[in-house]
Amino acid sequence: MNPFAERIASLRALMRARDWDAVVLTGSDPHGSEYPAERYKQVRWLTGFTGEAADLVVTHDHAGLWTDTRYFIQAAAQLDGTGVELHKTRIPGQVLIPEWLAAHFSDTPEPVIAVDGASISDAFTVEITDAFGQSGAAPIIVSSPDFINFLWSGRPSLPQTPVFLVDSGSYRADKIERLREFCRSRGCDGILLSALDEIAWVLDVRASDIEYNPFVISYLLVTEEQAFWFVLKDEIEDPDSDRSFEILAGEGITLERYDGIDEFLSECGGMSFFVDRGRLNRQLSEIIASSGVTAVPGESPVGAWKAVKNPFEIEGMRQAHIRDGVAMVNFLHWLEKSILAERRVSEWDAAVKLGEFRAEQAYYQGDSFETISAYGPGAALPHYVTPHQDAPLLEPRGLYLCDSGGQYLDGTTDITRTVPLGDITPLEREDYTLVLKGHIDLAMALFPEGTPGCRLDALAREPLWRARRNFGHGTGHGVGFFLGVHEGPQDIRQNLNPVPLQAGMITSDEPGIYREGQHGVRHENLLLCVEKGENEFGRWLGFEPLTLCPFEVSALEMSLLDRSEIEWLDEYHEKVFDTLSPLLEADVARWLQQKCRKIANFADF
Amino acid sequence: MNPFAERIASLRALMRARDWDAVVLTGSDPHGSEYPAERYKQVRWLTGFTGEAADLVVTHDHAGLWTDTRYFIQAAAQLDGTGVELHKTRIPGQVLIPEWLAAHFSDTPEPVIAVDGASISDAFTVEITDAFGQSGAAPIIVSSPDFINFLWSGRPSLPQTPVFLVDSGSYRADKIERLREFCRSRGCDGILLSALDEIAWVLDVRASDIEYNPFVISYLLVTEEQAFWFVLKDEIEDPDSDRSFEILAGEGITLERYDGIDEFLSECGGMSFFVDRGRLNRQLSEIIASSGVTAVPGESPVGAWKAVKNPFEIEGMRQAHIRDGVAMVNFLHWLEKSILAERRVSEWDAAVKLGEFRAEQAYYQGDSFETISAYGPGAALPHYVTPHQDAPLLEPRGLYLCDSGGQYLDGTTDITRTVPLGDITPLEREDYTLVLKGHIDLAMALFPEGTPGCRLDALAREPLWRARRNFGHGTGHGVGFFLGVHEGPQDIRQNLNPVPLQAGMITSDEPGIYREGQHGVRHENLLLCVEKGENEFGRWLGFEPLTLCPFEVSALEMSLLDRSEIEWLDEYHEKVFDTLSPLLEADVARWLQQKCRKIANFADF
Repeated sequence: MNPFAERIASLRALMRARDWDAVVLTGSDPHGSEYPAERYKQVRWLTGFTGEAADLVVTHDHAGLWTDTRYFIQAAAQLDGTGVELHKTRIPGQVLIPEWLAAHFSDTPEPVIAVDGASISDAFTVEITDAFGQSGAAPIIVSSPDFINFLWSGRPSLPQTPVFLVDSGSYRADKIERLREFCRSRGCDGILLSALDEIAWVLDVRASDIEYNPFVISYLLVTEEQAFWFVLKDEIEDPDSDRSFEILAGEGITLERYDGIDEFLSECGGMSFFVDRGRLNRQLSEIIASSGVTAVPGESPVGAWKAVKNPFEIEGMRQAHIRDGVAMVNFLHWLEKSILAERRVSEWDAAVKLGEFRAEQAYYQGDSFETISAYGPGAALPHYVTPHQDAPLLEPRGLYLCDSGGQYLDGTTDITRTVPLGDITPLEREDYTLVLKGHIDLAMALFPEGTPGCRLDALAREPLWRARRNFGHGTGHGVGFFLGVHEGPQDIRQNLNPVPLQAGMITSDEPGIYREGQHGVRHENLLLCVEKGENEFGRWLGFEPLTLCPFEVSALEMSLLDRSEIEWLDEYHEKVFDTLSPLLEADVARWLQQKCRKIANFADF
Repeated sequence: MNPFAERIASLRALMRARDWDAVVLTGSDPHGSEYPAERYKQVRWLTGFTGEAADLVVTHDHAGLWTDTRYFIQAAAQLDGTGVELHKTRIPGQVLIPEWLAAHFSDTPEPVIAVDGASISDAFTVEITDAFGQSGAAPIIVSSPDFINFLWSGRPSLPQTPVFLVDSGSYRADKIERLREFCRSRGCDGILLSALDEIAWVLDVRASDIEYNPFVISYLLVTEEQAFWFVLKDEIEDPDSDRSFEILAGEGITLERYDGIDEFLSECGGMSFFVDRGRLNRQLSEIIASSGVTAVPGESPVGAWKAVKNPFEIEGMRQAHIRDGVAMVNFLHWLEKSILAERRVSEWDAAVKLGEFRAEQAYYQGDSFETISAYGPGAALPHYVTPHQDAPLLEPRGLYLCDSGGQYLDGTTDITRTVPLGDITPLEREDYTLVLKGHIDLAMALFPEGTPGCRLDALAREPLWRARRNFGHGTGHGVGFFLGVHEGPQDIRQNLNPVPLQAGMITSDEPGIYREGQHGVRHENLLLCVEKGENEFGRWLGFEPLTLCPFEVSALEMSLLDRSEIEWLDEYHEKVFDTLSPLLEADVARWLQQKCRKIANFADF
């Protein structure tokens, strides 16, 4: 029997013993994290699906995994033989978990739906209940924190890594005061933060509790008079951590035990705390409700605050991108030489080599996500996971796609380059060019203040649309300052997210084209939103690319590019060369000069 | 004293007598119409503001008129001396009436806010109450239908014009059955329609009750067994009307008195009716609530149904646009000749002449809105009203803008052309070209099924944005089939309206640039959304222009246009000439041939 099918079977046995009609498990953790620690990868443990974003529903007659367009191909492959069915999200006509449950149990009075209350947001459980609507079938939601422990022997424990403080160009005290002002404006006695990126930003703390994300697993409660940080610190033996905790305590931040938050909150009856139900877990929500604490729900303001980078953070991001550009150029140079020399290089070898080049750079702290190193058909999976063993070899033809990023003390990077490794087909050339056209059109955009990213999304897609091509993922996501590589609240995508882009926000620009079984193209830079003056028509914003790394002009079908696009590309390449060449070895600098050569003069307009 | 200031003063006297703290009057009627009959132009009667969209709030210490970007300049001029302040909407930071009232009365316990319950939507009054939130100041909404009668002597009565039936390529019985299916799916006993365009579409009835809008003032209640049409018919003496009523009655539609709806509904206790609170007036809502009828609120499905034209309607729209194109070309030819001959032509003369050319066309029923005929600075007001007397004269230089449309038995048109009347300045030329570039870029768009118009809006604006120019109105609105010239539910504009464009929808494409005191440019065609094939990336949609009338190539700055834009323009002009020339006098056809000359060969790419 398939090992994952066995695990689902043992879950069903537990469900029978407990009289549960359904179990809902999310891919998240008690903090609503996008990337949870190993301990919280329950969906992966049960199904074998290794994608980042998936939720699972198991009933006695059905097991279904919900994931989005990015993972359809991967999920279909990994779920094969497990008995778990793929439910597709972010497509027209999608049926999400709440609606699916309501339909599935339409004839079952009061179905019992169990959730791991620690690892599901309060908002999600409310959506489930709401989906059942006014029907008599309204479900009973049972919150059973960590019930997976009964099945998962050897489940990893909570990580406790050294905690350190970072410089962000702002003061913790100011940020805490800003939170207090926010609470006063909402008439609350305090605010409970559970999102790890928000806590890291407020306290300027970092750790390595979660892979790729320098967060400290913790909660933060800020009241008018005090600030309580609920953090795992007991087993850390690290002098730097101790000093960090001391500094925080010296600034009036009270350190509390991470697992003490339940008890702490249960003694806060009569107070009112602002909470973000989308990030607050169900268990804490129940404790708050039963303790007589008034929960004032709303969107945490921290997300919007930290999205707008201050001048110190912007300068840090610029510097981090220069070092990251040096690593990328060294890597692309090495790659080209290796292929020309007919060396045996697998996708995995390439990813390792890129990691080595990044590790040479100052302030490097690790990667910001798992490198996607994909040759040919592998690149058609937008979130391909490069196998550690027996990875496909790079051939001296076709396209190689590499999506990677670094965490540095002074910034976070995220870059995709698609590289021809030799001859490419006319279709590969067209796709390469159209995607770059989309990338450039968005990067060149000038737009009025107040414009949300969703209104710009079509600029990146329209060159593809005109050729009847498209891509299923978003065009751009926010990026943190030595924080998460995916953050909001702004984005540039299909969904009608109303959050306007603002000067100081950093967002990716990453259109693509994917052809299953053939090839994939994606070009990604991070763009800093900048002011572009004011006139009688209003105030104007635009973008400045932070990422510094050449595109491959030899892969372009020049007749598909407009004059303004070619001018943008020449100007970008000039900046790349001028900025990076002084930091490169002579032979690499010469190589870069060739890559950054001007094409406007030779282009046939 | 300013006459409007006097009217506001007499309203305040009434307010004192009735102990009202505030009065809210909308620019609408009992049917939530965008263009109400004269009787319902209460805001205009009180303030003198003649724009289409305005709501009024009068308190004892403030009088404010809320209107959108289109009318800022006009409102400022017309409100001067009335004591009524302009409140701007559709701008960042707007404070709408509900929020304004809540702030204004934050210290007044239970303020009494009077509304004309007949002429305000139920939804709007709910918004007012909601804005006060949980505060103790919650308002008392007093519905006093037609209270303006106490002040407005000689208020026009309800119009009663002959009713006639039209052919729409579909059967009334089928549409009524579709409504019944909808009610069954929602578990309702019936649906109450109050929106006049929806009723006209369902019953295929038309009249001239409202200027520019061929609607019949009425309500329609469809139940599982019956259909009741509440209509003003008592005083119509017209054999065609009689015959229309007979045919409807013969098809099982029960005719009821228009003013009998209150009593009728009050006898429906125990039934449940689907209602659209955004179109249902407050008075009917109160009657429904007090009669024991269950109101099932939601968006009326009729708007979405009638937006997708059937093949008969599409063919009608095509034919109507051919005749409208003949009228427009005759007009533009006449205009050019008149200016060359140095004839004295005012903005008003031109509008009258255009009306005459339209009236020559078969099936013409009147204009679809008041023609905007604006020369020079007048055109900088997007919704300029051409004065009947002492209208500005057209000079043999600069730009003239004409936005107009016709109602035909087989369709509705809406077209804007901006015409150089002689030499134009470089700025006028640039603006003319950039707006046309935006117009063409949207018209050329190819996009995946499921795309809402708001995601395409930037395509029309981006050429303007890049030159740091913009316009304050939407880019496109839906247009009916011999119905309203503005209809939803789709549109192409800044607001994040999620309704996807579908094949068969007709939407305007009308970007512009307006420079106060100088000139205005707008180019508008109606676009039919059409299928554009299917491939591995999904199903594709695009546009086909219905409007047939040349743009002025002599006003273009060619260096600003891309190859694809020039190709679109040449192809469009070829279609215009081929379609219209056989229907024109020889000299006009020759003139058109010159206007439609190919420019690709001469363009300097």
